[in-house]
Amino acid sequence: MGSLGTNHASCTAIPEAEGKAEFQPLNPEDVRAYLHKAVDFISDYYTNIESMPVLLDVKPGYLQDELSSSPPIDSAPFVDTMKELRASVVPGMTHWASPNIFAFFPSTNSAAAIAGDLIASAMNTVGFTWQASPVATEMEVLALDWLAQLVRLPTTFMNCTSTGRGTGGGVILGTTSEAMLVTLVAARDAALHRCGSVGVSDLPRLVVYATDQTHSTFFKVCRLAGFDPANFRSIPTGPETYGLDPVKLLKTMQAGRYTGFVPTYVCATVGTTSSNAVDPVGAIAYIATMFNVWVHVDAAYAGSACICPEFRHHLDGVERVDSISMSPHKWLLTCLDCTCLYVRDTHRLSGSLETNPEYLKNDATDSGEVTNLKDMQVDVGRRFRGLKLWMVMRTYGTSKLQEHIRKDVAMAKMFEDIVCSDDRFEVVVPRNFALVCFRIKASGAMTEEDADGANRVLMENVNKTGKAYLAHTVVGDRFVLRFAVGSSLQEERHVRNAWDLIKMTASSILD
Amino acid sequence: MGSLGTNHASCTAIPEAEGKAEFQPLNPEDVRAYLHKAVDFISDYYTNIESMPVLLDVKPGYLQDELSSSPPIDSAPFVDTMKELRASVVPGMTHWASPNIFAFFPSTNSAAAIAGDLIASAMNTVGFTWQASPVATEMEVLALDWLAQLVRLPTTFMNCTSTGRGTGGGVILGTTSEAMLVTLVAARDAALHRCGSVGVSDLPRLVVYATDQTHSTFFKVCRLAGFDPANFRSIPTGPETYGLDPVKLLKTMQAGRYTGFVPTYVCATVGTTSSNAVDPVGAIAYIATMFNVWVHVDAAYAGSACICPEFRHHLDGVERVDSISMSPHKWLLTCLDCTCLYVRDTHRLSGSLETNPEYLKNDATDSGEVTNLKDMQVDVGRRFRGLKLWMVMRTYGTSKLQEHIRKDVAMAKMFEDIVCSDDRFEVVVPRNFALVCFRIKASGAMTEEDADGANRVLMENVNKTGKAYLAHTVVGDRFVLRFAVGSSLQEERHVRNAWDLIKMTASSILD
Repeated sequence: MGSLGTNHASCTAIPEAEGKAEFQPLNPEDVRAYLHKAVDFISDYYTNIESMPVLLDVKPGYLQDELSSSPPIDSAPFVDTMKELRASVVPGMTHWASPNIFAFFPSTNSAAAIAGDLIASAMNTVGFTWQASPVATEMEVLALDWLAQLVRLPTTFMNCTSTGRGTGGGVILGTTSEAMLVTLVAARDAALHRCGSVGVSDLPRLVVYATDQTHSTFFKVCRLAGFDPANFRSIPTGPETYGLDPVKLLKTMQAGRYTGFVPTYVCATVGTTSSNAVDPVGAIAYIATMFNVWVHVDAAYAGSACICPEFRHHLDGVERVDSISMSPHKWLLTCLDCTCLYVRDTHRLSGSLETNPEYLKNDATDSGEVTNLKDMQVDVGRRFRGLKLWMVMRTYGTSKLQEHIRKDVAMAKMFEDIVCSDDRFEVVVPRNFALVCFRIKASGAMTEEDADGANRVLMENVNKTGKAYLAHTVVGDRFVLRFAVGSSLQEERHVRNAWDLIKMTASSILD
Repeated sequence: MGSLGTNHASCTAIPEAEGKAEFQPLNPEDVRAYLHKAVDFISDYYTNIESMPVLLDVKPGYLQDELSSSPPIDSAPFVDTMKELRASVVPGMTHWASPNIFAFFPSTNSAAAIAGDLIASAMNTVGFTWQASPVATEMEVLALDWLAQLVRLPTTFMNCTSTGRGTGGGVILGTTSEAMLVTLVAARDAALHRCGSVGVSDLPRLVVYATDQTHSTFFKVCRLAGFDPANFRSIPTGPETYGLDPVKLLKTMQAGRYTGFVPTYVCATVGTTSSNAVDPVGAIAYIATMFNVWVHVDAAYAGSACICPEFRHHLDGVERVDSISMSPHKWLLTCLDCTCLYVRDTHRLSGSLETNPEYLKNDATDSGEVTNLKDMQVDVGRRFRGLKLWMVMRTYGTSKLQEHIRKDVAMAKMFEDIVCSDDRFEVVVPRNFALVCFRIKASGAMTEEDADGANRVLMENVNKTGKAYLAHTVVGDRFVLRFAVGSSLQEERHVRNAWDLIKMTASSILD
C-alpha cells in the first residue's frame, strides 16, 4: 500500500528527445478520440445503470488493493485508463445517477448541463476578473439574471434590469456553505463597523441565529468566519412544521440587548435538509430589520421548486432579505457545482472580499463598469461557471424545467398517498416538495423506541438489496426515513418498485 | 436589458401532459447526441484556436445585447444552443487555451483531464462522506498519494503508506485560497487553545506572516478567518530573489513576543505569482518551530515542476512544515478546479471543520476507518474530484508529465536567452521556472519612469494585435512584463512569433 518502490518518479532519467514524437496533451485528434470514448461510456452507463446495485458493499481501502499504489512511469493508451475505470472505479460507486436512489437530495442532471460543463472544462478559462475572460463574467451575470426571473426574485437582486445596473447582483459558487461564508463575513464586518470595533476586538459580541433544523454547515461556517460558538443561537422548532417561530426569534434577539450582544446574521431556510421545513422568510426579515441584522435565505434545494408559481409563496418576503442562495445542482438539472448567490448590495460583499494586486489591474476594472467575480467569493481562480446553467435554461426553457419539478412533486405525492394508505406507516411531517419523511409507526405493543429500531432495520435491509437507497434523519427525537424523489432518470415505476420493496421488507420485520 | 416581459416564467400555464412526450433530461440517446456535438465543437475549437485573436475588444454588457434578456419559455433543439455558443459566446472569450497566451499563469489541460472531468460531471456523485460514494473518496486519496510520490513529499503527508495509515493526508479543493483558509482556521483554533482563549476573545492577539510578494489572496483569506488586519505582517523582500529573508522573519516574530502577540501562521511561497520567487521552506520551518507557528507552503504553480528531480530542491525542508498545497490546474495538465492540499495531521483540520448531522451518520464513519472529506473543506457537497487527476497520471505517466514541464521550461529559457541578446531589454529577476519577467530597460536619456511608460505601451500594443497576450506586474517599483510559457497547445514557434511581435512593437515605440 503506497510504498515508494523502484517505480518512483525521481528514478526516471531525463528523456532523450530524438526519435520520439513530441507529447501534445491537447492534440485535437486525441481530444476527439478520448472524449468520444468517454461519451460512449457515459451513454452506456446511463443505459445500464438501472440494473446496477445503487449502493455497494465495498470495504475501506478497496481501491488501494485494486490499483497500483504508485503512479506509472510510462504513458499508456487511453483505453487502458477506461478499462480500469470500468473494472475498478464503477464497482465502488454509489450511483447518484441511478433512478433507484432516494437518499439525501437528488443530484439532478441533464444532457445540456453535462455538455455545458464539458465545454467549460475544455475552454478552461480562469475568469477572476471581467477582463480575464469577458464572456465568463457576462454569461454568469446573464444566467443569474435569467434564473432570478424564473423564481421571480425582485429586480433588486439582479445585475441588469430594464432600468440599468443597480447595486444588486449575484455570483455562482460551489456550494451553499460558500454562500453562507461570504455573506457572513460581509455581515460580520458591517456589525463590527457599526459597533465601533477596534479591529476584531468586538467579534466576541456578535451573535448569529438559526433553528435546530438549519443545516449543520451553517454553524461550521460561522466558526470559520471567527464567530464565537457561545454566540450561536439555535432556536428550537415545533413538531407542526419544524419552521422557525418568529416570536421565538424576536425574544432571542431581544434577550441579548442589554448584555452587549450584537445581533448580526440570521439564516432562514426554505426546505431544510432534514425534513424540508420552511422558515417564514417575510416575518424573519421584518424582525431582523429592527435589529439591523443580515438575513440570508438558504433555498439550496427548494429554491428550484419556486420556478413554479404554485410554490413561489414559500419565498414571500424575499424582497426584504439581504441575500438568498439556491443550488441548481440539487434540483434544476445542473450537475455539481452550481450554487447561485444573490445579494441586494454587491458592494457589501466586495467591501470584505476585494483584492487588487498589481497583476490583475486593468482598464475595465478602473472604469467601474464591470463586475470582478473574484471579489464576491473566497477564491481568485474560477471556472466558466455560468455556461452550464445557461445551457440548461436555453435548451429546456421554462416549460420543461417546470414540467420536471412538477413531475417529481407528483411522484412524491403519489408515494406519500401510498404510505398513508398503509396503516403500519405514518408520514411524519407535512410534505412540502418532493421529500417524504415517513416511518413504521408505533402501535399496539410497539413503543416509539421499538419503532425507531424497526425503521433502522428497515432502512438497512432495503439498502442491502442494492435495489433502492434510502437515508434517514431524526425529527422530534424519532428515527425517520427520508424518501427523496427526483433523480433525473427516475420514473413512476421506480417509485412504485421502491415502495413494494419497502412494504415487503417491513412485513418481514414486523411479522 | 433584463426586463420582466410577457415572456416571463410565471405566465406559463401548467402544461397539459396529454399527447406530449415526457421530458427525459438524461435520456441516454440525447446524452450521446448532445455530448458528441460538444466534443466536435471542442475539437474544432482547438484546431482553429491559433487563428483567433487571443484577447478581444468587447464592451461591458455586450452579451446582454447579443442574447435574450429573459429565459425562453419553450425548449429548443440543442443545435440552437450550440449555434448561440458559436455566434455569441466564443467571440467574447479570452482564449486561455490559445497557444498565444502568455498572461497570468497558463491554465494547462489535457485530453485525459477533460475526459475525467466529463465523466465526473455525468456520474454527478456527491462525495461528502466516504459512505456517500466510496470510490469518490478512495480515488481522491489514491490520486493525492500518487501525486505526493511524484513530488517526493515525505510519507507523513500521505494517506496510505507501506506501513499503513498515519495521521497525514490530503484533500482536493477548488483553489489555493481554500487551502489557505482551512489551514488558517485550524492554526487559529490551535493558537487560541494554546493561549487559553475564552471563545475567540484572544483572536485580536494572533499574528500571521508572509512577504510583500505573497499572493494577495492570503491576507484576504486571513480577513475571512477573523484575523485582525493590524496583525498581518508583510515582510519586505529584496531585489536579489524576492524570496523571504529568514532573519527578517525571526526578528518580526521576536518583536511581538513581549507585547502579547501570538505568532500563528506563516505562508511560504514556492513560485510567487508576481515573479516566481521562492521562499526558503526549510529555514522558515526551522524558525516557525521555535514559535509553534503553523507553516503552509503555497506551491500552486511551481509545485508541479517539482515532479522533475532538477526542481525538487525548491521544496527542501518540506518535511518540517504543517501543510502544502499545489494546483495541478496551473501546470499539471488538469483543468480547473484542482488544488491539492496535504497536511501532516488531518485531525487538526477535522477538529475545526467536522460536522456530524444525523442524516450523514453511518457505520463507515463510526468505524473510524474512513476519511470524510467534507471535514477537510469548507463545503459539504463535492464532485468526484480525484477522477481527472488520476486519469492524467494514469494515462500520461510520470515520463510524459516530466517531459511537459521540461518542454515549457526549455521554451522559457529560450525566450530568456533571446531577450538577453537584445540590449534594449533586460530580464528583471532570475528565472526559476517557465515565467520570464522582463522589460525595456532605461538607458541613455530614458529614465526608469520613461521605461515604465514604454513597457506599458508595449504591452498594450502587443495585446491589441490579438496575436499574443502578455500581463504585467510591478517588481521593485518597476513596471515589468510577465511572459508565462506553458499553455498546453504552445510550441516553440509560438514563443518565437511572440518575440518577433514584441521586438517589432518595441522598435516602433523606441524609434
